[in-house]
Amino acid sequence: MPALAARPEADALGAALERLAARFGPRFSASQAVREQHASTLTWVEPQPPDAVVFPETTEEIAEIVSVCSGNGVPVVPFGTGTSFEGHVNAPYGGVSISTARMDAVVAVHAEDLDVVVQPGVTRKRLNENLRDQGLFFPIDPGADASLGGMASTRASGTNAVRYGTMKDNVLGLTAVLPSGEIIRTGGRARKSSAGYDLTRLLVGAEGTLGVITELTLRLQGIPEAIAAGVCPFPTVEAACDATIATIQSGLPVARIELLDEVQIRAVNLYSQLALPEVPTLFLEFHGTEEGVKEQSARFGEIAGELGGGPFDWATRAEDRTRLWAARHDAFWAALALRPGARCVPTDVCVPISRLAECVAETKRDIARSGVVSPIVGHVGDGNFHCQPLFDMSDPAEVATGQAFLGRLVERAIAMGGTCTGEHGVGQAKMKYLEAEHGRGALDAMRAIKRALDPLNIMNPGKIVTP
Amino acid sequence: MPALAARPEADALGAALERLAARFGPRFSASQAVREQHASTLTWVEPQPPDAVVFPETTEEIAEIVSVCSGNGVPVVPFGTGTSFEGHVNAPYGGVSISTARMDAVVAVHAEDLDVVVQPGVTRKRLNENLRDQGLFFPIDPGADASLGGMASTRASGTNAVRYGTMKDNVLGLTAVLPSGEIIRTGGRARKSSAGYDLTRLLVGAEGTLGVITELTLRLQGIPEAIAAGVCPFPTVEAACDATIATIQSGLPVARIELLDEVQIRAVNLYSQLALPEVPTLFLEFHGTEEGVKEQSARFGEIAGELGGGPFDWATRAEDRTRLWAARHDAFWAALALRPGARCVPTDVCVPISRLAECVAETKRDIARSGVVSPIVGHVGDGNFHCQPLFDMSDPAEVATGQAFLGRLVERAIAMGGTCTGEHGVGQAKMKYLEAEHGRGALDAMRAIKRALDPLNIMNPGKIVTP
Repeated sequence: MPALAARPEADALGAALERLAARFGPRFSASQAVREQHASTLTWVEPQPPDAVVFPETTEEIAEIVSVCSGNGVPVVPFGTGTSFEGHVNAPYGGVSISTARMDAVVAVHAEDLDVVVQPGVTRKRLNENLRDQGLFFPIDPGADASLGGMASTRASGTNAVRYGTMKDNVLGLTAVLPSGEIIRTGGRARKSSAGYDLTRLLVGAEGTLGVITELTLRLQGIPEAIAAGVCPFPTVEAACDATIATIQSGLPVARIELLDEVQIRAVNLYSQLALPEVPTLFLEFHGTEEGVKEQSARFGEIAGELGGGPFDWATRAEDRTRLWAARHDAFWAALALRPGARCVPTDVCVPISRLAECVAETKRDIARSGVVSPIVGHVGDGNFHCQPLFDMSDPAEVATGQAFLGRLVERAIAMGGTCTGEHGVGQAKMKYLEAEHGRGALDAMRAIKRALDPLNIMNPGKIVTP
Repeated sequence: MPALAARPEADALGAALERLAARFGPRFSASQAVREQHASTLTWVEPQPPDAVVFPETTEEIAEIVSVCSGNGVPVVPFGTGTSFEGHVNAPYGGVSISTARMDAVVAVHAEDLDVVVQPGVTRKRLNENLRDQGLFFPIDPGADASLGGMASTRASGTNAVRYGTMKDNVLGLTAVLPSGEIIRTGGRARKSSAGYDLTRLLVGAEGTLGVITELTLRLQGIPEAIAAGVCPFPTVEAACDATIATIQSGLPVARIELLDEVQIRAVNLYSQLALPEVPTLFLEFHGTEEGVKEQSARFGEIAGELGGGPFDWATRAEDRTRLWAARHDAFWAALALRPGARCVPTDVCVPISRLAECVAETKRDIARSGVVSPIVGHVGDGNFHCQPLFDMSDPAEVATGQAFLGRLVERAIAMGGTCTGEHGVGQAKMKYLEAEHGRGALDAMRAIKRALDPLNIMNPGKIVTP
């Protein structure tokens, strides 16, 4: 069977869907409503629904689905919560979307080893609710209440990554179904291993193009004895970025350091009923002992003051902290509300931290020049920031301006030694940037790996690389 | 050309060597002495020298060498300092060893981004000497003064990994020459990226079987404001392991926590002129602020006391600390000196930390039962420990006993959910355990990747997997 580069033959597709319908009964759906729910819709990436959606409950059921699809040359699109931005869950060649919605069990908590085994449909909030009683938490926090399978697949990170790393650092092992339908286990529960190729980290960030993640072993953290949070205004985004750079370089183990520019602060004030001064602002959080967080916060206050920022306003009560971070997490919805009827096209880039101030400032000038409305918000401790431009999709000139702006943003980041995406992933929308970022040789190596593991190109085709 | 499964044809080998000799002149050697220096010799893995050794100075020269070898079906064996234990640098099918000895430049220190670009032949000690003036250090410390290219290739870790992670966590990007001779760049200088397959972590730990690492971008740390170190004796290895487990579970950010059993302490006392009580002992180090390390050390002292350990003896002077860690790093040589004329066959396993006490205690009982002389030393904060058994190689019965002991050690670790190697790597000696650890499916996936990137099987053949 040749590698897939178009929709499968109608006969083969029909045969696969018939078998899956018979096997999964009410857990199979080809209704238009369900199909449309399983296509990318959050941004301007055009939705491309699958031909059907199946709701398996076990690894073995996923292996069955993939085997049926593989045998008929039918594409498979893994689906978590559909909160990705770059077209990851679209089905450009049709096929079968595998929803992990019913695979939402926390399989085993190993408190003594600080790890947990979960099914891929467990969301990060549900996992943390489950863990709280044991004094443990899972730190990766991309904002959306995404599924852990999806977060692994996109190599997600978020606000806590500056302290705790990204999904690549916090997935110890995986169970996955390969495009052949074979079930494999990667990694394990030991904290480290030098036993062979790192298949875990090959699947983390592969966006479902090399296999379907069906179980994850994740590293946990103890809930810190003390948490301190606060906000700190700055006169300019450069000053806020410079304070971030100085904080990181001084080795201060900040747990969160988030920039919201004045446009995003205005959006957040409106959407979340806050009354923050509408200037560039850092949201911060420190984790440690009571003494430790006091020491850290005092040192940050000094750094901010030296760079013209402050006063540093502490939210000592847990409710205030929660309200602050809820507002931060609603930044996307707040941006949308700034311009009712418009579409928000959030995108992210990441640069070496020494280039952060320059990259953000230049992006702000570009926004001003091109007349785009775009709040900026970012995990600046990692050199990672997001633009959330708002477009009137009925105005082709505005859409073209917006696309050109986003292209310049990515080119600027790559030119500064950065990456076209720090945490959202490639999906469909950023495939065109990979050669500029990685070079032809590395891209060819990715293609060779894709062909080796998925010779028929049935696994989430049309994402990351064309084999 | 078929994939290599034996020595190359004599004509092809001759042609390749002739071209390389002409091209590299005095930086090419086929002398017996040089060839023998480039084969594994530290353990009982039989040395298998290459046919020649080349000493390139640039990535482009390595690409040339690999292209010549690839064109003639001649194996390539990357060589750093030759301090690996499992036969990694052997040439079972002959071929050309590529020494990185002359590629020892620190290319660029980016202090503001906490990263450094190095050639692969830079050793970790030389890197740290180079960084010290800038208040920075590279934390990965496998004991031997290994090359950074070799450390990346074996996914090395060592005493600081409990705090700072392993090579997989500290390599930001690589330049590598693939088996085709093509030069690729992976990763970058941004702190995180979701842009495609993680080729960096595929090459880290691939032991040179997928390509030759020719440049590395590494993450650095600021030298901590305060360092505190000390030793703490325990009545049994179980008590020492339980104290380790409690320390990790309590979230204490210990920078080093190393177990030496009573046999290893005796060896260290003799070899390094120390006078430690000959009981199981933890060597510890804490990094932080002055206040922070005091708080951490006090908390560790309490944990140790509750488990019957102590007194916790602090080495406050830098000279005392240096002497302590020098003794720890000489553990291999100290073990060897315990039994003059014997061979030491160090090996390592790693288990989930909850199983550590049980695994070490059972291994001690096995040592007692089988009559093997084997000090135990380990990075127990990661659940990782080493046996350093000493054998009289002229006694076949003793060698057989030793091999059976090492086999049981690995089986025990895998049965406890652990790995056949936490940090030494697979090389030749541990290939036989990979299926038991990973299962057939994962091993087949590794083979498929190897075939995809190295279809002729010229890149360090006979290591990790047989394609």
